[in-house]
Amino acid sequence: MKKLSLIGMGIVNERSIPLLGLDRLKEADLIFAELFTSILEEGSLERLSQLAGKEIRLLDREDVEETEMVLGAFENADRICFLTAGDPLSATTHQEMRLDAEKRGVEVEIINAASIFTAAPGISGLQQYKFGRTTTLAFPEEGFFPTSPLDVIESNLERGLHSLVLLDIQAHRDRYMSAPEGAALLLRMVEKKGGSPIGPETMMVAVARAGHHDRKLVYSSLGKLSNMSLGPPPHCLIIPGKLHFLEEEVLDSFRVE
Amino acid sequence: MKKLSLIGMGIVNERSIPLLGLDRLKEADLIFAELFTSILEEGSLERLSQLAGKEIRLLDREDVEETEMVLGAFENADRICFLTAGDPLSATTHQEMRLDAEKRGVEVEIINAASIFTAAPGISGLQQYKFGRTTTLAFPEEGFFPTSPLDVIESNLERGLHSLVLLDIQAHRDRYMSAPEGAALLLRMVEKKGGSPIGPETMMVAVARAGHHDRKLVYSSLGKLSNMSLGPPPHCLIIPGKLHFLEEEVLDSFRVE
Repeated sequence: MKKLSLIGMGIVNERSIPLLGLDRLKEADLIFAELFTSILEEGSLERLSQLAGKEIRLLDREDVEETEMVLGAFENADRICFLTAGDPLSATTHQEMRLDAEKRGVEVEIINAASIFTAAPGISGLQQYKFGRTTTLAFPEEGFFPTSPLDVIESNLERGLHSLVLLDIQAHRDRYMSAPEGAALLLRMVEKKGGSPIGPETMMVAVARAGHHDRKLVYSSLGKLSNMSLGPPPHCLIIPGKLHFLEEEVLDSFRVE
Repeated sequence: MKKLSLIGMGIVNERSIPLLGLDRLKEADLIFAELFTSILEEGSLERLSQLAGKEIRLLDREDVEETEMVLGAFENADRICFLTAGDPLSATTHQEMRLDAEKRGVEVEIINAASIFTAAPGISGLQQYKFGRTTTLAFPEEGFFPTSPLDVIESNLERGLHSLVLLDIQAHRDRYMSAPEGAALLLRMVEKKGGSPIGPETMMVAVARAGHHDRKLVYSSLGKLSNMSLGPPPHCLIIPGKLHFLEEEVLDSFRVE
C-alpha cells in the first residue's frame, strides 16, 4: 500500500526531528517539505537531507495547497514523506493533504514532534491546562488592524487563564515579528479599543527561541517589553492569568524590572 | 559547567525521542527517567537504554518530588539527563526540579518533544487555536466525584471552542482510563449536575493511541462511545465546539453512526 508520512521536524533544527522521522526519510522514495509559516535554524533542511542521504524538495505555499503536486507523485512512488516544522497537521492545508491522500487510498502516517504550543508554556513555567485559547498577532496591513487578538486575551483573563500569543512569520518575505514588536502592537490595540484590563503595566512573558540552546525568557511589563531587544526569531508572548505560587516562582526567576 | 538536560521522549516509544535527545543520552554521566503519569509502548525505556549504551534509572514519584535524588547526583557527575514522556516541563514537579537545579548553579537545557496536547488536535482534524482550556477526568474516588471537568467543557462550548479531555493514567497501578470509560463518566457528571448542553446525543471524538501506527479515531455520540471498545491505551476525548467546514470533513471521515 502506498504511504504518505506527515513528519514533524520540531522547533529547533535538523536534530529536533524524532528518530522515527529520520527512519522514514531514509526509506522514502520522495521527500517534500514546507516551511512557510515556521522557522528552523539556517541550513537545517540541507543538513537533514545529508542525514537522510536524499534530496528534500522545498515547496511553495501554492504547491502545498494544490495537493496534486505532492499526491500526484504517488504515480511513480510508494513512500512519500512530507516534512513540516513543529507538529504536523496543525495547518488547514495539511488536513486537506491528508484527506485527499485518504481519498486516493493512500495510507497516512503521522509522526508527531515538538510544537511551540507546548514548548512555550513549559519553558515559561506556566501550566499547560491553565491556558485558554491561543491567538496570533499578524503584521498590520494598510487599513486593516483588527483588535480580535486582544478580545481573546481579555476573554482568557476573565477566566483566570493564560494566553499564548503567537507572532506572525512570513518566511517567504524573511519577516518575523519580534516579541517587542508584538508588545507594541498589543498597546496599539488597547489604544484603538479604548479601555482594556491590559495596559503598559501588565506583566507578561516574552519567549525567544524556545527549545534552542540560546533561548531567552523575560518576565516584565508590556511597556518595558515593547522597548527591549531579545535577539533573533522565533519569539512569542504569554499573558499570564491567575498564578499558582510555583508558577510565580518560575516567572520571578527571569523577571526584569 | 554542570548541566541538567530535561528531555522529552514524545508519545510513542523509544523512537519518538528527538535526535538531539539521544545525542545527550550518549554524552550523559547519569540518566534518570519518570513515567508515572504517561505511557509509552512496553519495553521503550529498555530499548532506549540500548540505543544510548547506558543504564537508565526509572524513578518513583517520591524520588522526583524530592529533587535531591536527581540533583544530589551532580556531586559526582557533570551531565545528567532526566527523561519524561511527552514534552518536558508540563508537570509541576519538573518545574521544581528546574528551579532547584538553577539555584545550585546548574545549567538547565530543555529538549522538547511531541505532546498529546498538540498530537490529539492534529490527528482529529481540529484546529489547535480553536481549543479552549484542557481538562482531565480522574478515576472517581469513594465519596469524591467533582463535576468541574464538565464546567470546563461547557465554558469552552459557550465560546464555540473545542475541549481536549485527558484521561487518568495511574501507571504505578497499571490503570489507564479508556475513552469509553471517560464518556461514561461524563454522562454521570451530566446526571449529577442536572442540566447541561451535553447529553448522550452530543457528538465527540475519541482518539486512541495518537501518534502510534495503530491509532484509532472515532467520531460518534457520547452515548454510543460509552459502549465501544477502542483497544489498548492511551486514549483521550475531544468535544468539538463550532466547526469549520474542513474540520467537519475530517470528522466525517471517521464518523461511526
